[in-house]
Amino acid sequence: MSETLLSSRNLAFELYEMLDAEALTRRPRFADHSRETFDAAIDTARGIAEELFAPHNRKNDEHEPQYVDGAAQVIAELKPAVDAFIGAGFHNATRDFEKGGMQMPNLLSRACFAHFQSANIATASYPMLSMGASNLIEAFGSEEQKRRFLQPMIEGRFFGTMCLTEPHAGSSLADIRTRAEPAADGSYRIKGNKIFISGGDHPLSENIVHMVLAKLPDAPAGVKGISLFIVPKFLVNADGSLGPRNDVTLAGLFHKMGWRGTTSTALNFGDNDACVGYLVGKPHHGLACMFQMMNEARIGVGMGAIMLGYAGYLYSLDYARQRPQGRPLDAKDPASAPVPIIRHTDVRRMLLAQKAYVEGAFDLGLYSARLVDDCETLDSEDERKQAHELLDLLTPIVKSWPAEFCLKANELAIQILGGHGYTREYPVEQYYRDNRLNPIHEGTHGIQSLDLLGRKLSQNKGAGLKQLTRLIHTACQRASGYPQLDVLREPLERLLDHLSKVTLELLGDLMQGQAGQALANSALYLKVFGHTVIGWRWLEQTIRASDGLARLERDGGNPADADFYRGKLQAARYFLTWEVPACHHELALLEARDDTCLDMQDPWF
Amino acid sequence: MSETLLSSRNLAFELYEMLDAEALTRRPRFADHSRETFDAAIDTARGIAEELFAPHNRKNDEHEPQYVDGAAQVIAELKPAVDAFIGAGFHNATRDFEKGGMQMPNLLSRACFAHFQSANIATASYPMLSMGASNLIEAFGSEEQKRRFLQPMIEGRFFGTMCLTEPHAGSSLADIRTRAEPAADGSYRIKGNKIFISGGDHPLSENIVHMVLAKLPDAPAGVKGISLFIVPKFLVNADGSLGPRNDVTLAGLFHKMGWRGTTSTALNFGDNDACVGYLVGKPHHGLACMFQMMNEARIGVGMGAIMLGYAGYLYSLDYARQRPQGRPLDAKDPASAPVPIIRHTDVRRMLLAQKAYVEGAFDLGLYSARLVDDCETLDSEDERKQAHELLDLLTPIVKSWPAEFCLKANELAIQILGGHGYTREYPVEQYYRDNRLNPIHEGTHGIQSLDLLGRKLSQNKGAGLKQLTRLIHTACQRASGYPQLDVLREPLERLLDHLSKVTLELLGDLMQGQAGQALANSALYLKVFGHTVIGWRWLEQTIRASDGLARLERDGGNPADADFYRGKLQAARYFLTWEVPACHHELALLEARDDTCLDMQDPWF
Repeated sequence: MSETLLSSRNLAFELYEMLDAEALTRRPRFADHSRETFDAAIDTARGIAEELFAPHNRKNDEHEPQYVDGAAQVIAELKPAVDAFIGAGFHNATRDFEKGGMQMPNLLSRACFAHFQSANIATASYPMLSMGASNLIEAFGSEEQKRRFLQPMIEGRFFGTMCLTEPHAGSSLADIRTRAEPAADGSYRIKGNKIFISGGDHPLSENIVHMVLAKLPDAPAGVKGISLFIVPKFLVNADGSLGPRNDVTLAGLFHKMGWRGTTSTALNFGDNDACVGYLVGKPHHGLACMFQMMNEARIGVGMGAIMLGYAGYLYSLDYARQRPQGRPLDAKDPASAPVPIIRHTDVRRMLLAQKAYVEGAFDLGLYSARLVDDCETLDSEDERKQAHELLDLLTPIVKSWPAEFCLKANELAIQILGGHGYTREYPVEQYYRDNRLNPIHEGTHGIQSLDLLGRKLSQNKGAGLKQLTRLIHTACQRASGYPQLDVLREPLERLLDHLSKVTLELLGDLMQGQAGQALANSALYLKVFGHTVIGWRWLEQTIRASDGLARLERDGGNPADADFYRGKLQAARYFLTWEVPACHHELALLEARDDTCLDMQDPWF
Repeated sequence: MSETLLSSRNLAFELYEMLDAEALTRRPRFADHSRETFDAAIDTARGIAEELFAPHNRKNDEHEPQYVDGAAQVIAELKPAVDAFIGAGFHNATRDFEKGGMQMPNLLSRACFAHFQSANIATASYPMLSMGASNLIEAFGSEEQKRRFLQPMIEGRFFGTMCLTEPHAGSSLADIRTRAEPAADGSYRIKGNKIFISGGDHPLSENIVHMVLAKLPDAPAGVKGISLFIVPKFLVNADGSLGPRNDVTLAGLFHKMGWRGTTSTALNFGDNDACVGYLVGKPHHGLACMFQMMNEARIGVGMGAIMLGYAGYLYSLDYARQRPQGRPLDAKDPASAPVPIIRHTDVRRMLLAQKAYVEGAFDLGLYSARLVDDCETLDSEDERKQAHELLDLLTPIVKSWPAEFCLKANELAIQILGGHGYTREYPVEQYYRDNRLNPIHEGTHGIQSLDLLGRKLSQNKGAGLKQLTRLIHTACQRASGYPQLDVLREPLERLLDHLSKVTLELLGDLMQGQAGQALANSALYLKVFGHTVIGWRWLEQTIRASDGLARLERDGGNPADADFYRGKLQAARYFLTWEVPACHHELALLEARDDTCLDMQDPWF
């Protein structure tokens, strides 16, 4: 049977040939782990994803949550799925043993979770949001908050959300109006309205712990006046038992184009002036706390986009192998039998592009997950800091690049299926609709581009950027030892040189206070930077693939492995020769400080 | 109130500044028409579209047709809408006065119809399909067939469909299996299964006239063995009254991602061996007949894609003007008021790109419609032939370019609305879902690319291509009289030169029988050819806009006109400097006969 969630051969390539997951087991934190425990976790994830998540992916879409008597109802299949997820401990995968976790590397946790995202992104969202919320309390909550709220989340009894957006303030968090008034007992009274809150209500857990951004009465204007609060759906008594319902009301549900299985809610806090919240961390420092969760969430969004792309790629690949239609371009006999459409070059193009997008992004996503491990478990503080700097720089790319290009992959998957792909009788149209959310939530594409160009590049005096540049140069140097890779390495080197030149110029503009000009075309910059990063990851893959081929030639082995490595080389060739060189034009526009968009006046539209 | 269907200022620009619609009234066929009758028809179309089509566009989507007791049920709003359309005579817009038509130019008919496509593409499809079927009978049917089937279609009592695709044969029509056996009475017995038949069943008309491709018993293999049949839902008696139900069964409905208001049906012909059909035209010549309808349909698909793009553009433009969010990049005071998002350069980029795609394609679509008029009403046979050659060449572009780039426009419209754009509470997500069909039906993108590169370029010894090249050169020459247009003209000239060189090389390959190599990257060729054509249409628009600005400066006039012309210049600048130069890389791949996709082997995936 063909694989539907991801290629396990490719996952093994990533874990054990690209990212050396086994090396992690030599770090003290992961000493109890081994390739065997990793593979066992992955097998468990795949099993649950295939048996309990994938089967209701379409039903989730067709039967979106309903608003009934002030609550959100979901289909019955969700609870057994998330229960199995929790039962297997995946929501605590990275948590300390002593706190009830599996103390797994982040890399493995992401790899396991990828199966659920591919099988059913909507159902997978509930535990994903809860994991983010629980990590936030673990990082910034008081001991009392951890006892009351985190512990039941670890036990899988409470779920969580993040409540940022308000009707008038989406990207512009500085403008939120939700208020938090101090109460006599040390808690706060929360009042405000939040929208687009995923998992804001559902019957899957005993309680829902909302992580809410709000402003204290003495809050300064702007993002420096935002505080973070725990606002539970049900109050929790000192003994941990559930208290009365808190003053949080489900005001309504949003009806989305895709991702329909996840409730998207409008929540009213304090309609009766009785909404109890608890301050997390220091006053006015809520955004910094939330960013810990958001950075994690942004990698999660990127991985979700990748896995939707992956699911569509595998489905359309299987379809192209099975579906007979038409004849080769040079066939002469109209009575000859039709061939599977994978024989048509244009279909191969659409598959190869998908492979290049999906496997390129998958590599970057897991590379970033491994960086999280490095941030936490490398020996020296200096090394950990370096990993942090690189991860910070890459986060907007991990979030945005897959959201754009794995969506494009889904568009191609539909095209391969033709009219069938456009019907809801096949899964690819849902992947496309689901994936269209990813350039929007957790910071739109535009926000990511400003984050990259306006902030991340110059953070820590450009330490992350210098590191990335060095890493790409090193990869190119290594690749130059493989003459057959010259045609792949050279386009990347040319792009990196050009990008570096343009980057310096734009940073110069920014230092001279010319933000309007420097950031005008940030979308172009984001795209080219992303292509450079993915191009680098593809070059790294070709080095390993070349090693793999050499090894097979020397030692023999499974012929399917040779096919696998050749596919890597061909997908890299697609990306580095078809896509990477096209970026120079975009760099030229940046270089020229092109002002076509900046100069456009409203009345001209 | 802002316009929602299309910009009437832009339509007037197209009709009276770009395409000189008034000149058509000097041709004998259109002598009874004038700018006043044109404008009156457009006003009528806009009125009906706004009042009867637009209001149920969302409802169409939410309540897709249902299969009940062997028939397709649709929402009640459809019938009054199509009745009003028919009542106003739009289904006969181009037909002779003496046959009950309005004898309007095709240009005006398309312009009128554009309003319906923008308001509600799904409802507009029913009359559009019927118009195609009736034109087919008018062109190829016998007098008896015209009397029985065409006349009621003209009266709006019968609707029509086109039945090509079968479960195993979509793009590959050569492989259809539907059979037609001669019967004693001169009619035929049809047997087979068709899928994806739009409008294949509905309660909107007394009868449905299916135009069916099938094979006669002595049919040669391949496309040269396909014949065309009229297969009515109800038989028609000699006196024109409805006879018994024909043996055509609604086997089921397809459930699509978008375009849900149009029934997409599976039809069984001859389940009881009693399906009566009538041969149209000569045996085995069905495909040639059908292509008359398909070419018309392909322009219709292109216009549909454009109008979905247009509707999304106007909606997101209005939203961007109304929605306050964030502050300018160089704003210092976090307490300052948020600005409408149209002030953000990246939002302007997304609007400008939409404008460039939508208005560029709209110009090409109407230009092609005018070519249809030239094919039919130019004085000399030679001129008519020339118009035909050019139209034939442009048809794959008119069909495919908007399907790709106006879909991209819809993607940008969603992005401008952010989270709201992703919900079904706003219309843009539906436009995006609806538009995703357009690269698939009436010949996929891949089919269009093969049609262009493998057939149309060399048709009539390249007469169409030579004509197009000459037209673009002439436009560039005229533009060179406007120094301010140099920066727009030069990129187009460079692209045309490069494209011409590559075209000659590929045609050379084809002549040497190297079809596999020449056509391998036809998708790239289609894209670059399309960008060249749209770039040309934009240059033409800037010439008129420059003339308009000069006129205003000289004579005075409405200041809003100056804004309009400046917007044209800026959108052209976006297209010609941001998008057109990027095509050289794609041409370089074509030039190198890049074999990345051609060489990809199945087991490597």
